[in-house]
Amino acid sequence: MNAEIIAIGSELLTPWRQDTNSLFVTERLNKLGVNVIFKTIVGDRPKHLVDAVRNALGRTDVIVVMGGLGPTEDDLTREAVAEALKITIKRNPELIAQLYTRAAQRRMTMPRNNEKQADVLEGATVLENPKGSAPGQWLDTVYGTHRKLVMLLPGPPSELKPMFDAQCVPRLKDALPPRFIATRVLKAALIAESQADARIAPIYGQFTDVDTTILAHLGDIQVNLLCTKPTMELAQARVDALANRLEEELDDLVYSSHGERLEQIVLFYLEMKGATLSVAESCTGGLISQRLTSISGSSRSFFGGAVVYSNELKSEFANVPPSVLERHGAVSKETAEALAEGIRERCDTTLGVGVTGIAGPTGGTEEKPVGLVYIGVSDGKKTDVVERRFTGDRGRIRSYAAQTALDLVRRKLM
Amino acid sequence: MNAEIIAIGSELLTPWRQDTNSLFVTERLNKLGVNVIFKTIVGDRPKHLVDAVRNALGRTDVIVVMGGLGPTEDDLTREAVAEALKITIKRNPELIAQLYTRAAQRRMTMPRNNEKQADVLEGATVLENPKGSAPGQWLDTVYGTHRKLVMLLPGPPSELKPMFDAQCVPRLKDALPPRFIATRVLKAALIAESQADARIAPIYGQFTDVDTTILAHLGDIQVNLLCTKPTMELAQARVDALANRLEEELDDLVYSSHGERLEQIVLFYLEMKGATLSVAESCTGGLISQRLTSISGSSRSFFGGAVVYSNELKSEFANVPPSVLERHGAVSKETAEALAEGIRERCDTTLGVGVTGIAGPTGGTEEKPVGLVYIGVSDGKKTDVVERRFTGDRGRIRSYAAQTALDLVRRKLM
Repeated sequence: MNAEIIAIGSELLTPWRQDTNSLFVTERLNKLGVNVIFKTIVGDRPKHLVDAVRNALGRTDVIVVMGGLGPTEDDLTREAVAEALKITIKRNPELIAQLYTRAAQRRMTMPRNNEKQADVLEGATVLENPKGSAPGQWLDTVYGTHRKLVMLLPGPPSELKPMFDAQCVPRLKDALPPRFIATRVLKAALIAESQADARIAPIYGQFTDVDTTILAHLGDIQVNLLCTKPTMELAQARVDALANRLEEELDDLVYSSHGERLEQIVLFYLEMKGATLSVAESCTGGLISQRLTSISGSSRSFFGGAVVYSNELKSEFANVPPSVLERHGAVSKETAEALAEGIRERCDTTLGVGVTGIAGPTGGTEEKPVGLVYIGVSDGKKTDVVERRFTGDRGRIRSYAAQTALDLVRRKLM
Repeated sequence: MNAEIIAIGSELLTPWRQDTNSLFVTERLNKLGVNVIFKTIVGDRPKHLVDAVRNALGRTDVIVVMGGLGPTEDDLTREAVAEALKITIKRNPELIAQLYTRAAQRRMTMPRNNEKQADVLEGATVLENPKGSAPGQWLDTVYGTHRKLVMLLPGPPSELKPMFDAQCVPRLKDALPPRFIATRVLKAALIAESQADARIAPIYGQFTDVDTTILAHLGDIQVNLLCTKPTMELAQARVDALANRLEEELDDLVYSSHGERLEQIVLFYLEMKGATLSVAESCTGGLISQRLTSISGSSRSFFGGAVVYSNELKSEFANVPPSVLERHGAVSKETAEALAEGIRERCDTTLGVGVTGIAGPTGGTEEKPVGLVYIGVSDGKKTDVVERRFTGDRGRIRSYAAQTALDLVRRKLM
């Protein structure tokens, strides 16, 4: 079954704001066996709105309309859907009462035009909105000779998401033929998308019943598997079989077999081994620490570290001997080694990481170009240092350096 | 004049990937006086593609089609546009030769089906693609009785953006009536969107000829102004007049009058005053350092600091007396004060910042709930500490804490 998602709002047609709800809705619909084949983003002019809804009715059976349910003159979704379906709208007295009660509870007086939010389409079920004032609507109707499922949902993600999960998903399950869909997400670090695809395409090519999508972003590869079968066991068995074959092929490049983030995996291994970590960051400037501390509970194994942008701080916080800096320079194998060893000692952790490099766009030389990064990992007995030459802008070089450092820690712990 | 943007590609209809090109194209079109009134995202089924292009031709005069120009069977943009416009396609021998030359230069043999990329629509101008193999196409044509400007552009942003700027913008300028559009971007920190709007709406309401858009994200408010006039001077005068009035109203909440980021402004003030900065981060875990070091040249005034997740490191790197931690706890006014003073001394900077708090979701108590954050800023003579109670999830609390810390430094420097 096919769906169209319509996002309504003039702000979604500016250079600054983008619809993101549709990613969430697509994920939920896919799990119910519904494919999204069109997304339309439209402003708040009545003619355009009706046009968009009419087109959607002509080509899909499930239509999710998001936004334009508020109390202002620009909120025209109800009217547009009614006109496209040629049905009437009635103001619901119970909903009006609820709106006034809600305003009173917040000690606000409700302007008269807010009553508009109590307008209900003929035959629609009202979807409660505990997070906001505009209720949603669910319509199971006939257009021409076809059954159509139409949902009107509020635009703010904090209102739309819980409403969709609690009130649309169960209704869709009842309305749609039962589907059993299993999914898996594998993640791998630091392999190019084309290389990853070249290695795994011959494998997933044999699993024609599993939908495989590869995404790449800043040194992170995500492989999404999805399979639909008459029973959940069959579906799960197929995605698991493919996932296992892919893991075998990519071997230790795969860091996560169920979609966890790299920093989560690193923290998981640290805890499992009873190990602790500290980081001395020069060119990444806090990026590695920030990623680790974004995970709740990270303080159990990540103690912290230092952002050592200046040479003085490299010595002050990570014991880098000034002679090393003088002889080899701040961006060198020797400095990365000293940073890793020094921060480990100073923080009294099992492992220490040191990163130094030239993130650019300025500061490069012929001998030490922009993108040159050294990363050291020390366990007290031995310190491994890798040299990398990343390309791209400052943000990309820093992201790749952080990703590489985290992956090196993961490998050290494996 | 109105435009529709059509983004083509099945991957744009998955839960994982989103069209972002349209934000760039919209910004460029707006500056030429063209409004985007529809965005359509469609997969690679021929019928859907033709349908999308035909709808666009029926309702807008400028149509930007992005993606689907590659060599594979799924790349059907050329065919779909030709069918919608009822024009023919011819394979261009010169382009075929170029494709083979390009492949040879890369020491690759070109598969025969790649010749597809040399297909040119009747009457179209070929747009060179120095960054990839698929050329774009520009079509200035008539549909029914209306003139239509249709652009076919490659999907990868690295190919689309330079092609649009170098080859579409000049052609659009020639084809469209001259427009003079001035823009300004003001940014303010730590005021709620509704509050900001309540204060500035009465002002921008008087400037009916200036388009005002307010965006809010994690404690950052952006006010976009845009004005179209018969001359650039008139347009600029109007946006500047409104910008000045808004700056007066919002006063020191405004940190940037031309769109710079808060961390850029902080670094700018530091340099201007010949001052330097260091940061001791507990709950923000490197976020502040990471934002500052994301700016090229930040090393001139930001020396670094420490991520002090554990109590031991608070003492080791930022001289926080263990007695302070014992008496008041790690999350306290006193610890924030000691962190700011200690990191300033240790890093030998003009200013020192200390942040400590409970980012959650666990670790809160009745007395010290999740969201409680203390931020200290020390100049050696005096240390100011603020207490904040942020709401939301871990990411939001950390982002607000970092934003507040940077804004406090800005205010200290003003």
